[in-house]
Amino acid sequence: MAIKGVLRPGFIQIRVLDMGEALVHYLDRIGLHQVSREADGRVYLKGWDEFDHHSIILREADSPGVDLMAFRVMDDAALTEFEMRVKDWGLSVEQVPAGEQPGVGRRIGFEIPSGHRIELYAEIARAEHHPPIVNPDVWHDLPHGMGATRFDHALLYGPHVDQVMHFFVEALDFSLAEQVMMPDGLLAIWLSCGNKAHDIAFVKHPEPGKLHHISFFLESWHDVGRAADIIARYNISLDIGPTRHGITRGQTIYFFDPSGNRNEVFAGGYTYYPDNPTRTWNEQELGKAIFYYEKALNERFLGVVT
Amino acid sequence: MAIKGVLRPGFIQIRVLDMGEALVHYLDRIGLHQVSREADGRVYLKGWDEFDHHSIILREADSPGVDLMAFRVMDDAALTEFEMRVKDWGLSVEQVPAGEQPGVGRRIGFEIPSGHRIELYAEIARAEHHPPIVNPDVWHDLPHGMGATRFDHALLYGPHVDQVMHFFVEALDFSLAEQVMMPDGLLAIWLSCGNKAHDIAFVKHPEPGKLHHISFFLESWHDVGRAADIIARYNISLDIGPTRHGITRGQTIYFFDPSGNRNEVFAGGYTYYPDNPTRTWNEQELGKAIFYYEKALNERFLGVVT
Amino acid sequence: MAIKGVLRPGFIQIRVLDMGEALVHYLDRIGLHQVSREADGRVYLKGWDEFDHHSIILREADSPGVDLMAFRVMDDAALTEFEMRVKDWGLSVEQVPAGEQPGVGRRIGFEIPSGHRIELYAEIARAEHHPPIVNPDVWHDLPHGMGATRFDHALLYGPHVDQVMHFFVEALDFSLAEQVMMPDGLLAIWLSCGNKAHDIAFVKHPEPGKLHHISFFLESWHDVGRAADIIARYNISLDIGPTRHGITRGQTIYFFDPSGNRNEVFAGGYTYYPDNPTRTWNEQELGKAIFYYEKALNERFLGVVT
Amino acid sequence: MAIKGVLRPGFIQIRVLDMGEALVHYLDRIGLHQVSREADGRVYLKGWDEFDHHSIILREADSPGVDLMAFRVMDDAALTEFEMRVKDWGLSVEQVPAGEQPGVGRRIGFEIPSGHRIELYAEIARAEHHPPIVNPDVWHDLPHGMGATRFDHALLYGPHVDQVMHFFVEALDFSLAEQVMMPDGLLAIWLSCGNKAHDIAFVKHPEPGKLHHISFFLESWHDVGRAADIIARYNISLDIGPTRHGITRGQTIYFFDPSGNRNEVFAGGYTYYPDNPTRTWNEQELGKAIFYYEKALNERFLGVVT
Repeated sequence: MAIKGVLRPGFIQIRVLDMGEALVHYLDRIGLHQVSREADGRVYLKGWDEFDHHSIILREADSPGVDLMAFRVMDDAALTEFEMRVKDWGLSVEQVPAGEQPGVGRRIGFEIPSGHRIELYAEIARAEHHPPIVNPDVWHDLPHGMGATRFDHALLYGPHVDQVMHFFVEALDFSLAEQVMMPDGLLAIWLSCGNKAHDIAFVKHPEPGKLHHISFFLESWHDVGRAADIIARYNISLDIGPTRHGITRGQTIYFFDPSGNRNEVFAGGYTYYPDNPTRTWNEQELGKAIFYYEKALNERFLGVVT
Repeated sequence: MAIKGVLRPGFIQIRVLDMGEALVHYLDRIGLHQVSREADGRVYLKGWDEFDHHSIILREADSPGVDLMAFRVMDDAALTEFEMRVKDWGLSVEQVPAGEQPGVGRRIGFEIPSGHRIELYAEIARAEHHPPIVNPDVWHDLPHGMGATRFDHALLYGPHVDQVMHFFVEALDFSLAEQVMMPDGLLAIWLSCGNKAHDIAFVKHPEPGKLHHISFFLESWHDVGRAADIIARYNISLDIGPTRHGITRGQTIYFFDPSGNRNEVFAGGYTYYPDNPTRTWNEQELGKAIFYYEKALNERFLGVVT
Repeated sequence: MAIKGVLRPGFIQIRVLDMGEALVHYLDRIGLHQVSREADGRVYLKGWDEFDHHSIILREADSPGVDLMAFRVMDDAALTEFEMRVKDWGLSVEQVPAGEQPGVGRRIGFEIPSGHRIELYAEIARAEHHPPIVNPDVWHDLPHGMGATRFDHALLYGPHVDQVMHFFVEALDFSLAEQVMMPDGLLAIWLSCGNKAHDIAFVKHPEPGKLHHISFFLESWHDVGRAADIIARYNISLDIGPTRHGITRGQTIYFFDPSGNRNEVFAGGYTYYPDNPTRTWNEQELGKAIFYYEKALNERFLGVVT
Repeated sequence: MAIKGVLRPGFIQIRVLDMGEALVHYLDRIGLHQVSREADGRVYLKGWDEFDHHSIILREADSPGVDLMAFRVMDDAALTEFEMRVKDWGLSVEQVPAGEQPGVGRRIGFEIPSGHRIELYAEIARAEHHPPIVNPDVWHDLPHGMGATRFDHALLYGPHVDQVMHFFVEALDFSLAEQVMMPDGLLAIWLSCGNKAHDIAFVKHPEPGKLHHISFFLESWHDVGRAADIIARYNISLDIGPTRHGITRGQTIYFFDPSGNRNEVFAGGYTYYPDNPTRTWNEQELGKAIFYYEKALNERFLGVVT
């Protein structure tokens, strides 16, 4: 395969304050499917267009936020190789045995300089309700709610964004698709492990380990509009949108889950290749970078993280 | 980078009967931009969202069809490695010196078992009118005509499709995203070198070296509809559409350039990963595979190639 | 009000062979809502964006087709005035007492020269599940299936289309928005009683009283595409589309209900005013008139009626 | 015709500070066509889908704002009848001779209680570049810029909104499609003379004769998004959007012309009938009424008028 190493964002584990409210939000509104609820109370979800067992894990806790984000790598040999490269880069690596999450093989975990736990794994069971394979229809059941196709990426807030960039590029072979460069240095980075403009992104922030948003992919700007209607109809707390990002060109809307975790659903964006120049934004157009139409950041966007 | 080796379809050289008519078609209707016209009469074109110098070469000739399709590889080391792998796989390799096309470095060329000439290259100049890089607007000039963003892929007709599949997978690290398997064997294959469901595709056909269509990417189903309006308004010869492919899920319309070469503009389709199962179609649903709505092939689609 | 007299197509009564299959089709696929099933077996349906009690009546019978199409007029005075005008025009008028359909006041019925029964009425109850009125959300429940907003119009086949045109214009104050004029006379007419390009249409046909299709309005070309996906996924019998009509510019798809009655869902079309010139199509562009992209009629479109 | 009396908003005359800048804005960005520039300096424009000679008149002046808004009535008899009804309602009527604007017949003008000049006329020449009539293509030239199809409506600010409502309903046969009712009375009204949810609207404001915005119709939410891209790319001053109105359900974006006059381009909205209940918004949901997604008014929306 021409794509090697890290394949994609695999799953993310999110803390929610009330599982019942969270499930109404993620299942009925965003349109995910529930895969299983395990004995420890964690609930596993997936988008209708994902083959893997799950991509979102909800864990009930006293505070919202992100526990970990995990990437799927090509195979176990790649996992072993990345383990060495992560250690060589200088991070401590923790082993997570197979089965800690249902259907998932052994994982390695480590804390990156921004204070987030990142994991890698090579094995995951195919979901029972996977997209059809033989004479496949476009979908088996008409997508419901916002029709989220998949967990797409996360934007994380924390310190040492420059080190994080070097780590992902040097140890995990990501590319730097876009960056915001301020007079005092790198403010934000968008990193890609494939043809998507971003698989994970970081913004510089004094407090480590914070979650800005998790993002789900929709098929069109039309679906972004329908998501906005759903947000309004069900009084979901809106952050901003529908709008477009200058960065990645994504057509987007931001809102909050009942626990205060920010969600994004988005469509569009360009096809990225690793030989593309890193698109660079500076302070003159920072507003346009984030919200292409409004050309200004709202305070929530910079300040509210979980 | 997590994408290595072959990056993408780079360019395709097409024969047209009348350069003037061809330019009206590809520039004004499909919405490409002219990069240069060289002394030998070849005209170089690109989509508005492409960084590379060109992606379409038009050559005036007595018969329509395809001269060659070329893929961009990561760097010169990769080119050298692929040269050995192609030879090891058993094909003869021809050297094309840098500068044979404006802005393009050295290429290697070889004829695959379907009778098509495929080339690889590592170096190409950045187009003068490339997408913006610093504080980049979504586009510099509002896309015109159908708004084709890029040359996306080609579907080629020829014999020995099974050997072609083995060649692309074994020598060039492509993945087999979808296939049509008939009782008498493999009829058609869709091959990917990245996250697109297809970068090149082949259908079994007795005559070697034939072109079924070249395809351009549009941003939305809405744009497919607008393309249909343009096709009708300017009396461009329609093949079929707007419709959807079962294969790749692309939302599509087919039509012919003034020389009889088939074109496609399409949008949508899923994000492909190399660990996805190969989606397989059989004779029971062959119609749905090709035209998901009509569920039947028109005779033109199977019989008319250039 | 500036709109007087005939307000809109109110309801249409259709014969179906199997009520169970018909309800799956009209409720789950097209996305209508069931209002009631009456003692005589008739089932009453409406679109999610309609205020009136019902707009579609299904009647189980041995053969498919249309029993009657009814228009809502402004008030009872208008109904009385139209009764006189219809009689003066030369048609016999039959009285239908209030309550023959649930929620509907007195109706007058008459057979027009094409052999179809047309009715007028002024009173109809507001549907229990009407669109919201006070601080109204865009919808109360997310539309399901194809998301049909309303019964929009019907196309009827029968003889004496020129007389029918005169009747609707002279007795009911309709406008002739578009027409197809062949060397041997008027082939087809599209008639409007408001700002829609058509509220009812007729094509010349030797057999009287035939139904070509009933049509439902969708909100966008995107929704036409989704309807096409639903048609393919559930193996609904497709006639043609997604395509566009030259006539009315509607973006459309045609298919058949399980009894063989043709349905259309469509979006778009221009805003019509009664001082607009009658758009006229002739035999040179008859194909483009009907199917703007294909530029040719399929035989089913001309021959299959119920 | 079932539509009688007032047919539609016909034209609006706007004051601009710099004609050159205004023409770039209205022609190149919004996508109108220039019809003529007259000796007195006024420039006449129209949308690509309008039959009438013009719909927008730009007049260079020292302050922005609206001179007058005019409605087309069915015929001269209707004009004469409306003249009497307007006088009977208590307004003074001024005669404007034919030819004061190119192609326009005699007009009557009067000042309504909000301080705006409204005019009526029955005769207007057909534009040279009108939509095609015989075997009509969807468009003759691919719409450019935002692709505004037509002048759709205006929202005017001034006092005595309740009297204005009575005037339009009683003297001109408009319907009240929507209203905002505050504890201290009627705040705003949306009035229809056909099947559109609004042909003119008013918000209560202490200063008479003010313009909130003029509005142009687009064909889809997709086109609203493209308008937003154009606004961002060309640094047009954005007010708000893309968003949706609760009132009328229109999908919309607001921005300012170079003189500070607010413009809207919008798509969607429901089909209105005069027997529909008046949708009523109250103070609990005023934000949602105006901006369905943001659920809050920005100060510009209430305060900035010309």
